[in-house]
Amino acid sequence: MSERIQVLYRVKSDAKSIAARAKAIAVEQSVEMPVEPIDDPFVLNDIVGRVEDIRDLGEGLFEVRIGLAAATTGFEPGQLLNMLFGNTSIQEDVVFYDAEFPRSFAAALGGPRHGLEGIRKRVNAPRRALTCSALKPQGLPAKELAALAARLAEGGIDYIKDDHGLADQVYSPFAERVPAIAEAVAAASAKTGIPTRYLPSLSGNLDSLRKQMRHVVMAGLDGVLIVPLIVGLPAFHTLVKENPDIVFMTHPAFGGASRIRPTFLFGKLFRLLGSDATVFANYGGRFSYTPEECKDLSMAALAPWLGLKSCVPVPAGGMALKRIGELLDFFGVDVMLLIGGSLLATRERITAETARYVEAVRATKA
Amino acid sequence: MSERIQVLYRVKSDAKSIAARAKAIAVEQSVEMPVEPIDDPFVLNDIVGRVEDIRDLGEGLFEVRIGLAAATTGFEPGQLLNMLFGNTSIQEDVVFYDAEFPRSFAAALGGPRHGLEGIRKRVNAPRRALTCSALKPQGLPAKELAALAARLAEGGIDYIKDDHGLADQVYSPFAERVPAIAEAVAAASAKTGIPTRYLPSLSGNLDSLRKQMRHVVMAGLDGVLIVPLIVGLPAFHTLVKENPDIVFMTHPAFGGASRIRPTFLFGKLFRLLGSDATVFANYGGRFSYTPEECKDLSMAALAPWLGLKSCVPVPAGGMALKRIGELLDFFGVDVMLLIGGSLLATRERITAETARYVEAVRATKA
Repeated sequence: MSERIQVLYRVKSDAKSIAARAKAIAVEQSVEMPVEPIDDPFVLNDIVGRVEDIRDLGEGLFEVRIGLAAATTGFEPGQLLNMLFGNTSIQEDVVFYDAEFPRSFAAALGGPRHGLEGIRKRVNAPRRALTCSALKPQGLPAKELAALAARLAEGGIDYIKDDHGLADQVYSPFAERVPAIAEAVAAASAKTGIPTRYLPSLSGNLDSLRKQMRHVVMAGLDGVLIVPLIVGLPAFHTLVKENPDIVFMTHPAFGGASRIRPTFLFGKLFRLLGSDATVFANYGGRFSYTPEECKDLSMAALAPWLGLKSCVPVPAGGMALKRIGELLDFFGVDVMLLIGGSLLATRERITAETARYVEAVRATKA
Repeated sequence: MSERIQVLYRVKSDAKSIAARAKAIAVEQSVEMPVEPIDDPFVLNDIVGRVEDIRDLGEGLFEVRIGLAAATTGFEPGQLLNMLFGNTSIQEDVVFYDAEFPRSFAAALGGPRHGLEGIRKRVNAPRRALTCSALKPQGLPAKELAALAARLAEGGIDYIKDDHGLADQVYSPFAERVPAIAEAVAAASAKTGIPTRYLPSLSGNLDSLRKQMRHVVMAGLDGVLIVPLIVGLPAFHTLVKENPDIVFMTHPAFGGASRIRPTFLFGKLFRLLGSDATVFANYGGRFSYTPEECKDLSMAALAPWLGLKSCVPVPAGGMALKRIGELLDFFGVDVMLLIGGSLLATRERITAETARYVEAVRATKA
């Protein structure tokens, strides 16, 4: 019998319709046609989706477990997403909740190449939480972004990422911005003795992503930021496979989280494809996740899973400096805090405030 | 002053909070940081998003018009999506409603290379509605899919597309499936005298898409099906640019339509990037759009817009043969009807039923 992915969908329904609705989802996400005219036994037994279980969660909500044949994905990231939630994403009564993959997916897709341990090692921080900030606003020329990066690095921060809005715009072209910032960070690093890492944001099609990756390597960098749902999962995963020495931090933009549980999308699917560090919208900021959702997501990113390396949870989005203590209590030390705008808002005090942020995090040990 | 894209977001809010909320969205979709510490006049004047208008739609819903600087997109499809609805897609109170683009976007992105007129010309159908069906179920070997395609073509259908679930799986590898089906369709075409077209579904990363495109051309075909939200908008648009002679039909999978108005995503954005024919979930089928939404989407795909070619609306999804008359009354003749499962369900009568379908559509003239 063929291997199956076990997918959990949460479906709004009444009790007397749910069995038929579950069957319809199983068909939609596999053969997408009436089952009656199919007479090929291989298709019927090994390809058509199978309703494995239906649980009544109360208040008109049901959890439906469907077994989808692994073979239908071809173990290709785009086709995987298509089979998990292609057509069904358009049906308003369904939320994609979770999936359990056979171990063959770990072997085929590989997950993070570095994970929490690798990301910690790069900045000599074996046990504490990690610090991160972002270069903004877009519109500044490369030189000013580099000066800003230097001030953050002089405060001793671990990771500095481009804002995901920094692409290849005329006012700070990638090929000009990245070496300038890399050099500024390296110079600051030489002063502080702290191996601060800079993660440029990659964008465009696969040709452009590869070209940008060559600039990254030429600039002596060893990590990047990428937005999988914008560049496409196939392009993201191709880069991961081609660049085993590069750390990949993922950004959640275009995640439309109301229809896919964030734990699955950012905590598991991005990890399966090779994200070493997954940025997500933290509770209490500009986004609408609850503390429980954030804890759940970060645990999914870190938990032992299919033998894959862990993926660093990176809570972000309107995080204030005064929340550091609370966030470390909440997430523990297996975390990278990403504080962007509220550091940038301290203007001329930015290096001192960065140092304060860094100190607060360094003081917390496992 | 720099060019701006005018974006309409629909926001749930109360009257006293909407001004601040609108401002927050304008910032989120541009500089993504507090505006106060920004002192660069170029960034303040030409980059930060601008609230242009707020309309109270009643019942706690507001329409917010925001001007986003065209320059922030770099005229690159992925970065465009990022700027339009990257972070905001994660905020549950916002639906992306629509956008008006400066004409520079038409020049940079180009829209459909063939459009309604080109798609009609290929099948010698200058004035009537067009017919289409889909090859399913996945799991069948190439030979059986080819036999099925032949039976549809013998019924005189205009276009036959792969199910978007057909990728490059072991049971019907692309390189084997496509020439086999192309040959079967050509043979049937020679018998009927009707120039039926076959559109294979492309998948994978850009390398794989390009390789598949070479197989398409080698098989003598001149059109394809693609899923932009799965392969990624950058990859989709790259293929369009590289293959001006190929007709591109787009599939809406992973569209998660509850947060982006389908009219914009499938009727306008896919058109701007070069879709010649846009498949969408029709009303009254398995999906939840209303007749008004479907009419609106198809009008957006066809209407004069930025000097672009039109894009053929392709209503699909659980469409029954008995609805042909109703659908032609509703959509008129500038449409391609896509009837898949309910044709396949007629089993041994499939060629005769296809002929009946084709005849019903041919009988309707503008």
